[in-house]
Amino acid sequence: MADTVIENINDYMLQLGRQARAASRVLLRADTAAKNAALLAMAELIEARADTLMAENRKDLEAGERNGLDAAMLDRLAFNPERLGTMAEGLRQIAALPDPVGAISDLNYRPSGIQVGRMRVPLGVIGIIFESRPNVTVDAAGLCLKSGNAAILRGGSEAFHSNRALADCIREGLDRAGLPADAVQVVGTTDRAAVGALLRLKDHVDVIVPRGGKGLIARVSEESLIPVIKHLDGICHVYIDDHADLDKAVKVTLNAKTQRYGTCNTLETLLVAESIAPRALTALKPLFDDKGVELRGCARTRAFLPDIGEATEADWQAEYLAPILSIRVVPGLDEAIEHINHYGSRHTDTIVTENYTRARRFLREVDSSSVMVNASTRFADGFEYGLGAEIGISTDKLHARGPVGLDGLTTLKYVVLGDGHVRG
Amino acid sequence: MADTVIENINDYMLQLGRQARAASRVLLRADTAAKNAALLAMAELIEARADTLMAENRKDLEAGERNGLDAAMLDRLAFNPERLGTMAEGLRQIAALPDPVGAISDLNYRPSGIQVGRMRVPLGVIGIIFESRPNVTVDAAGLCLKSGNAAILRGGSEAFHSNRALADCIREGLDRAGLPADAVQVVGTTDRAAVGALLRLKDHVDVIVPRGGKGLIARVSEESLIPVIKHLDGICHVYIDDHADLDKAVKVTLNAKTQRYGTCNTLETLLVAESIAPRALTALKPLFDDKGVELRGCARTRAFLPDIGEATEADWQAEYLAPILSIRVVPGLDEAIEHINHYGSRHTDTIVTENYTRARRFLREVDSSSVMVNASTRFADGFEYGLGAEIGISTDKLHARGPVGLDGLTTLKYVVLGDGHVRG
Repeated sequence: MADTVIENINDYMLQLGRQARAASRVLLRADTAAKNAALLAMAELIEARADTLMAENRKDLEAGERNGLDAAMLDRLAFNPERLGTMAEGLRQIAALPDPVGAISDLNYRPSGIQVGRMRVPLGVIGIIFESRPNVTVDAAGLCLKSGNAAILRGGSEAFHSNRALADCIREGLDRAGLPADAVQVVGTTDRAAVGALLRLKDHVDVIVPRGGKGLIARVSEESLIPVIKHLDGICHVYIDDHADLDKAVKVTLNAKTQRYGTCNTLETLLVAESIAPRALTALKPLFDDKGVELRGCARTRAFLPDIGEATEADWQAEYLAPILSIRVVPGLDEAIEHINHYGSRHTDTIVTENYTRARRFLREVDSSSVMVNASTRFADGFEYGLGAEIGISTDKLHARGPVGLDGLTTLKYVVLGDGHVRG
Repeated sequence: MADTVIENINDYMLQLGRQARAASRVLLRADTAAKNAALLAMAELIEARADTLMAENRKDLEAGERNGLDAAMLDRLAFNPERLGTMAEGLRQIAALPDPVGAISDLNYRPSGIQVGRMRVPLGVIGIIFESRPNVTVDAAGLCLKSGNAAILRGGSEAFHSNRALADCIREGLDRAGLPADAVQVVGTTDRAAVGALLRLKDHVDVIVPRGGKGLIARVSEESLIPVIKHLDGICHVYIDDHADLDKAVKVTLNAKTQRYGTCNTLETLLVAESIAPRALTALKPLFDDKGVELRGCARTRAFLPDIGEATEADWQAEYLAPILSIRVVPGLDEAIEHINHYGSRHTDTIVTENYTRARRFLREVDSSSVMVNASTRFADGFEYGLGAEIGISTDKLHARGPVGLDGLTTLKYVVLGDGHVRG
C-alpha cells in the first residue's frame, strides 16, 4: 500500500493547517480532565492494538530491508510489545504531569488600581518534523496535547506505515475523550515537498520543532518562514579547575565522556588547569584507555601524555559522538571560559572546583543553555531536570533554552483585571 | 557634513558585529553598580551637552526642511531642553530598576541529588532598527545595557546627526563607568544597505527589534536571518457583554477609543451583545459625536443607530489609528470570542461584564497578548504593567508576548549544582 494520492501538495498542507488551527481553538478551552482522558485512551489503544501496529510496522521493516537500511536503523524502527508498552507508559506519565495551561502568576495591583498578571497559554499549532524513530510520533503528540497545542507531525518516510498506524490510535483516543481528532494530524504522504509546504504555513503554524540530524535541522532553519525551536551541536566541556577535588574531577569527567558516546550532552573537550594537569591527566589516562577512548591533546597535554595524538583546531570544533576526547591544558579559569564561549555550542558545560568564587564566575560567565558545577554534563536532560518529558534540547537563546518540556510549548499572555478602570 | 566614508558596507557591519559580540562578553559579567553608573553618566552628559546636541539636531531639521518633511515629522525630530531632560530622566529610571541579570529561580534538589535551577541571563547582542524619533536611541541603549546586552542601533537617516551626537554621550558614559564603549554602537552611515547587512549578521547578533511603521517591520521580518521580536498591528476590541455594568461599559469604551487615537492599544472595533445593544449604543452615540468619532456599524447596529455608516469586511480588519470606530452587534460571548480570534491582531482585548464565568472564559479563550476585564485597552503598556520601561509591544507568541521590558531582553539558562554527581 502506497500513500494516499494527493493531487496538490500545497493545497493538502494548507488543509491540514486550517484543520489544526480550528482544533487549536478547541484545545485552548479544553479542560485538564479531557486532555488526560485522551492521553490515557491513546495509551490503552496502543497496547490493545499491538498486533495491528506490528503488522503495519512490518511493512516499513520490509521496505527498509529492500531499500538497504542498515541493521542499526532497522532496529530503531522496529516495534515489539515492550517498545509499544514504553510508548503507552510515556503517555501515562504525561497525563500525570501538572497541566501548565491557564496558570496565572504575578497577579499584582498597580498604582492605577488595575491588577496585572500573566497567564500561561498554548502556542497554538506546532509542526514537528522528525526522522525514523516512530516513538517521536507518540511523545510529541502527547506533549503537544497536554500543553494545549494542535500538532502536525511529519515523520520519516521509512516509518510511514508505523506512524500512520500510531496516528490512528492517537486520533481515536482524542475522539473518545470528546476532543477534535485534528488536534494531532500526521502528514499522509512521503512526498518531500510536504516539508517545504509545511515550513511556509506561517498563518496556520506557530512554531516548528525539527528533530533529527544536522542536515534536517539546517534545511528547516534555512527554509522555514515560521519560528524554529532547534537543537544544533552539543560540543560540551568539562573544566578541571586547579582547586578541583581530584576524585570528583575524575568521576565527573569519566561519566561525562563514557556513560554514552552518541548523545548531545556527552563531553567532547576536556579543559584542565595547568597546575593540576599532571595529576589529573595521569589519573584519567588509564581509565580512558580501559574504556577504549582515543585521546587527542594540545602540546602541553602531550608533554604529560606523550603517547597520545595531537589535537588540532578542528578538534576543538568537533562533536565526535564517539569514543574520542580532545584535551587542552589552560592557564586558568579565564582561558577556560574563553575557550568554551568561543568553541562551544552553548549546550552544556561543567566546572569541577571547590572554589566558591570560581564556581560563581563559571555559572554566570559561560554562555550555555546548561552550566554546571561538580556534576556530569550527562545530566542535561528533561527527565533529570524534572520537566517530566522533553520534546528536545534547544541551543537557541530566544524563547526556550536547554531541555524543552511542557512549559517550553507554552507562552505567557498578560491578564488585566479592573472594575471599570480607564487610563488618565 | 555627510556620513563617514565606508568602502564596503558588509565589512563595516561585520566589524560592528564583532565589536558588539566582544563587548557583550564583558557585559555578561558587568556588575549592577557599573551598569547603573554608566546610565547615570549618560544622563548627566545628555543634560550637560544640550547645546551641542541641539546644534547637531539643527542639521537634521534643516535637511528635513530641504527634503520636505512635514511639520509633524519635524516636530517629532526636534530637540529642546525639556525633551533632552526627559531622555536623561528615562535613563535614571532605568538605573533605578532592579537588575534582572543573574537572578536564579526554582533551584530545587532532584532525586539524583543535583540541584537544578534557572538563571536569567542577557540575550547577547541586540540589533534595533527604528525610524525618526531619536529618543529611541537613548531608551534602547539604556534598556539593552541594563539587561546586559550589547546593542547595534540603526536609526532613521533623517535623524542621523542627532543619533550620532546622542551616541557620543552614551559611549562616553559607558567609558566613564569602565565599560566598553562598543556596548552601544550606532551605525555610522545612512546607506540603506546597512540594514540588509545587519539582518544577515546571524553569528554576531542574537535578536532584531524593529520599531517603526508596517513597511519597516514587513521588510525586517522578510529579510532577517536573525530572530525578530516584532510588533504588528493593534486591532483591539472591547466586548460589551449583556451582563455588563452599563456605566463601566461606557467609560471603558470611550477611554479605549478616545484617550489617544494613534496608539496601538487604541480600540478599533466595538462588539456589543444583542440584548444590551440598544441601551449601550444609545448611551455611547452622543459621547462619540461630541468627540467627533465616526461610527461605522453592521446591519444590526444600524437598526439602532440608523444615521451611521456601514461597516464592511474591511472595517473588521482595519487599524484606523484615527477617530473612527467600527461596531458589530453579536448574539453573545461565543461570537465575540470568535470575531476577536478571527479578525483581531492578538494585541489587546477587553470584556466588560459582571458575570464571573464569562470573564473567566474570555481571559482564557481570547488568544491575545493582553486580555482584560472591565479595563481600558489603553492600559496595555510597559509602564502601566510595572515593567518600568518597554522596548516595544510584541504581537508574536514566541519568547516575549505583550509589552517587552528588561525581562524580555533576557533568557533563562539552567544551572546545575552537584558534589561530584554522575549519571547512573
